[in-house]
Amino acid sequence: MIAEGTGGFMSTVALLTDFGTRDHYAATMKGMILQINPKVTLVDVTHEIAPQHVLEGAFVLRQTLPFFPVETVFVVVVDPTVGTSRRILAARYNNRFVLAPDNGLLTFLHRDAQLQEIRVVENRQFMAATLSATFHGRDILAPVAGHVSRGTALDRLGPPADRVEVLDIPRLQWSRDGSITGQVIYVDHFGNLITNIAEADLSGPRLQVRGREVMLGDRRIGPVRITYADVPRGEPVALIGSTCMLEIAINAGNAAHTLQAGCGTRVHMTP
Amino acid sequence: MIAEGTGGFMSTVALLTDFGTRDHYAATMKGMILQINPKVTLVDVTHEIAPQHVLEGAFVLRQTLPFFPVETVFVVVVDPTVGTSRRILAARYNNRFVLAPDNGLLTFLHRDAQLQEIRVVENRQFMAATLSATFHGRDILAPVAGHVSRGTALDRLGPPADRVEVLDIPRLQWSRDGSITGQVIYVDHFGNLITNIAEADLSGPRLQVRGREVMLGDRRIGPVRITYADVPRGEPVALIGSTCMLEIAINAGNAAHTLQAGCGTRVHMTP
Amino acid sequence: MIAEGTGGFMSTVALLTDFGTRDHYAATMKGMILQINPKVTLVDVTHEIAPQHVLEGAFVLRQTLPFFPVETVFVVVVDPTVGTSRRILAARYNNRFVLAPDNGLLTFLHRDAQLQEIRVVENRQFMAATLSATFHGRDILAPVAGHVSRGTALDRLGPPADRVEVLDIPRLQWSRDGSITGQVIYVDHFGNLITNIAEADLSGPRLQVRGREVMLGDRRIGPVRITYADVPRGEPVALIGSTCMLEIAINAGNAAHTLQAGCGTRVHMTP
Repeated sequence: MIAEGTGGFMSTVALLTDFGTRDHYAATMKGMILQINPKVTLVDVTHEIAPQHVLEGAFVLRQTLPFFPVETVFVVVVDPTVGTSRRILAARYNNRFVLAPDNGLLTFLHRDAQLQEIRVVENRQFMAATLSATFHGRDILAPVAGHVSRGTALDRLGPPADRVEVLDIPRLQWSRDGSITGQVIYVDHFGNLITNIAEADLSGPRLQVRGREVMLGDRRIGPVRITYADVPRGEPVALIGSTCMLEIAINAGNAAHTLQAGCGTRVHMTP
Repeated sequence: MIAEGTGGFMSTVALLTDFGTRDHYAATMKGMILQINPKVTLVDVTHEIAPQHVLEGAFVLRQTLPFFPVETVFVVVVDPTVGTSRRILAARYNNRFVLAPDNGLLTFLHRDAQLQEIRVVENRQFMAATLSATFHGRDILAPVAGHVSRGTALDRLGPPADRVEVLDIPRLQWSRDGSITGQVIYVDHFGNLITNIAEADLSGPRLQVRGREVMLGDRRIGPVRITYADVPRGEPVALIGSTCMLEIAINAGNAAHTLQAGCGTRVHMTP
Repeated sequence: MIAEGTGGFMSTVALLTDFGTRDHYAATMKGMILQINPKVTLVDVTHEIAPQHVLEGAFVLRQTLPFFPVETVFVVVVDPTVGTSRRILAARYNNRFVLAPDNGLLTFLHRDAQLQEIRVVENRQFMAATLSATFHGRDILAPVAGHVSRGTALDRLGPPADRVEVLDIPRLQWSRDGSITGQVIYVDHFGNLITNIAEADLSGPRLQVRGREVMLGDRRIGPVRITYADVPRGEPVALIGSTCMLEIAINAGNAAHTLQAGCGTRVHMTP
């Protein structure tokens, strides 16, 4: 980040919330950020996290952050306990910044990325003059994001955080014969079923994953393949998706609807 | 706003429409604005106003404008009478600009904000060369927004407007005992029920509001509290929301669905 | 496009996909583009093309491109055969750039706009270091868009394309008496029915179109009029819409719902 003449910095603030896009909520956050840093590039990651579904927000944050420029500031607001004593954190992972309530939104990032610094946001100087009890996204997180995007160091925001709230996430079960049981943890817009079986969990490179048989619940999906079109249209397919996790899809179809599956459905992979 | 070398100005244009986000409509407006001011920052307030629901657009505009930088240009298009003799207005409220058809979209802003200047947009010089009969958003409002964001003064757009269309909005009823009856006027993405009882209408500061009993229709909601989590999960709660209006919610739930309420549902507050 | 000091160019990249806005997909594309060109202006045309509906994407692209600044880079990803041998094209039409899989997404643009150059994207130098099999939007199209928006010439991306995939589109039937039969080809957010009868297909200017009688299936809609409000609220109306095509609407209503019509419904226009 390089300072420029007219009072702002060229940098990116990425917003990830459950606010939807119908109301004024997301827009007022952007207005607050622009008031502080008029040169910022604003990017909507999504505002369609299921209302108050912290773990879904944590998943999308983890999938998005590594692909953004270093120094990007992520503002994450899925905040069912707004107005209580839950803290707001300002963290630095993999050279990007994350501002979020301390309610589990960092769960996946904290597991998979490199934590470099983490602070509790307490300094009123970087917040709105008046704080509402129900919209800290607008009154605290957005203004702080504006300041961080202009170069305010995290250590000015508040004291170091001694802990981070992390939610329980489903774990894999390994059998002695080398088979693995996991589950669906995310269903995307296409109805693709993303599981908690990561390519990195499997022994060796992708070639060794390919060909292993996959079951979704009691239904045989077939061997792990490369891409959707490796099976005829309308047929189910298992593959390592762009998240580097095992994914079950229907070629040119919607697996969640057709296979009647969703978050929590059991997935089994043979040795 | 400061002119910069390559033919544009750093400023913000905020779009608020009922166009949805599936079609080309909102995007073509952005293209037109960028053709005129390539340095503009475009912000989507929302494109999901219910189709042709002017009063909903007016509400979201009122809630959004004060949080944006001064000089921001709002382009508001909810325009069921496009192509008729309804006028297009260019106004300045609270040091921000608003461009909108004169059909009631300014209703709440006109009541609550300071009007500084208002013009009828007539000067063809700032419009597209060819005007369609059904898409003045693209052909008139977007190009005019591009020009205003570059510094074109409102008095160049057309003559002063002698009146502004304002819609009837529900009024509060005050009883002699100090109780107030209002109604739900907006339901947000979370199902929170925003009423027309404003904190400013009540005598004195928030402390005096707190504790007053609230009824939604025939259902007792309880006293006015501070935040959602002041009641157990799944329980209804009344509070002064981030709009500074009385709001009825369900902690971690959807009040509109659970309480079967919506715009027009009666709300009563004891003395 | 003029180079600026800090390593990017002021230009616009417009995204048009079927990714929806709930997941990380569209956002990761933006992150990749910003990594390559931090000064780019990103515009979402839409991410709500019906999943894998190539022709719908082709229609929206054709309606949008002419309204954007010259040199805008359109990235179009509706890609049901991702990971197969289908090619990725980089084209220049009407002084704007389009990057898209070669699966029919260029159908309408190729018919209506001026093709200036077209290449097969093969040069790995402009792609991500690692390519997934299922998300070329992130790994190929986004990085290439970043480079093209910075001024990389199309001829550096790969060899000339010798052909372009074009889908069959419904054609008009002309009767000897001068009547025309076409069909609905797009239904917009308002339920307006856009047909394949273009104003340019009709003999002479708009005045001669006006007044011709229109049938939707077996239902009489009435003469071609100028705007929605030319009929009473709730009544159907035919007009030349902002796409310059014959459109059937309900004034202040939803024609698709009310008239039970959609893509493929026959439309007839008398001489």
